[in-house]
Amino acid sequence: MARKPEFDRDAVLENAMRAFWERGYEATSMAELLTVTGLSKSSLYAAFGDKHKLFVAAYDLYRARQAENLTRILTEHTAPNGIRAFFEDIVGAGTESWQRFGCMSTNQAAELAQSDTAICARVAEDHRILEDAFTEHLRAGQRVGSVIATVDARAAASALVTAFSGFQLTVRAGLDRARLKRSLAYLLAPLEVAAT
Amino acid sequence: MARKPEFDRDAVLENAMRAFWERGYEATSMAELLTVTGLSKSSLYAAFGDKHKLFVAAYDLYRARQAENLTRILTEHTAPNGIRAFFEDIVGAGTESWQRFGCMSTNQAAELAQSDTAICARVAEDHRILEDAFTEHLRAGQRVGSVIATVDARAAASALVTAFSGFQLTVRAGLDRARLKRSLAYLLAPLEVAAT
Repeated sequence: MARKPEFDRDAVLENAMRAFWERGYEATSMAELLTVTGLSKSSLYAAFGDKHKLFVAAYDLYRARQAENLTRILTEHTAPNGIRAFFEDIVGAGTESWQRFGCMSTNQAAELAQSDTAICARVAEDHRILEDAFTEHLRAGQRVGSVIATVDARAAASALVTAFSGFQLTVRAGLDRARLKRSLAYLLAPLEVAAT
Repeated sequence: MARKPEFDRDAVLENAMRAFWERGYEATSMAELLTVTGLSKSSLYAAFGDKHKLFVAAYDLYRARQAENLTRILTEHTAPNGIRAFFEDIVGAGTESWQRFGCMSTNQAAELAQSDTAICARVAEDHRILEDAFTEHLRAGQRVGSVIATVDARAAASALVTAFSGFQLTVRAGLDRARLKRSLAYLLAPLEVAAT
């Protein structure tokens, strides 16, 4: 009978996720991972395999949370305001991890996706999920008349996904947030039905 | 009298730049830097100080080249076609370093800008240069009637700078280039004067 691990797997993954999210993959040392998870090296290896496998598991936890967050925001608002709220969440000055560290997918794309097929596949899937969710949100808005009907919803969603990485990178790097507000206004303008 | 360095400083910086550009700051080891520059550790330290100072010098070489490239592309075309050409250069399938590794500024923003004030200041300046250049290009187009006069050129330039990071990250990570073509079409559409 397999021995039950003597630790809380979810808590370990949560702590590992925060370390990787804050510092990236390469810069997070095994020593730091042992400190934040409270595990011995042998327990960590027995449970997760190696640093890379721990990273992938932590990243998948992050991705599941962000997917829930996306669905919640888009369903709470009529288009294009779900998208506006999603981006305003990123731009909003805050001290939450999201604001301080940027999107983990964007960070990983920059650091690892080029050389790491497991990560690249996940970033690509996240971008597809985001583009599909934005497209559906905009099409729903077009059906109820809150989004200009002649706009190509897929093209708009593509531009928003492309801009998403830029939003995240700007926030993570501590760059000019006023630029992001101007960017959002420009990106949403072609979608918006004029107030009557 | 200071002894003249027995190596070609420009060639050393060029090779160091390519190593950092391809792999990022952390992942480029001192051993690799010695191999690509052909210097001994003591010569490299005497000439550049340390790994970080070498990186900053290599990065400044990259930035000067890209600034020239930007000016050349924007002056060769009437707006908004200079911007179109600039982005099509990024999207174009190629085997040039630019296409394979993405923009060094974007990579550094993702990896270092949050924790490294010397890098952060440079990335912020690069984004300002890019936004100003796009704004001037669009205003010149508005003066000659090739860009819709009522568009806020600064807001459009902001969105294009924000999207720029996303374009670079997408190319570097090997993600969906078709998305970038749709993105570019959406970003430029509000600027374009209809063909008559």
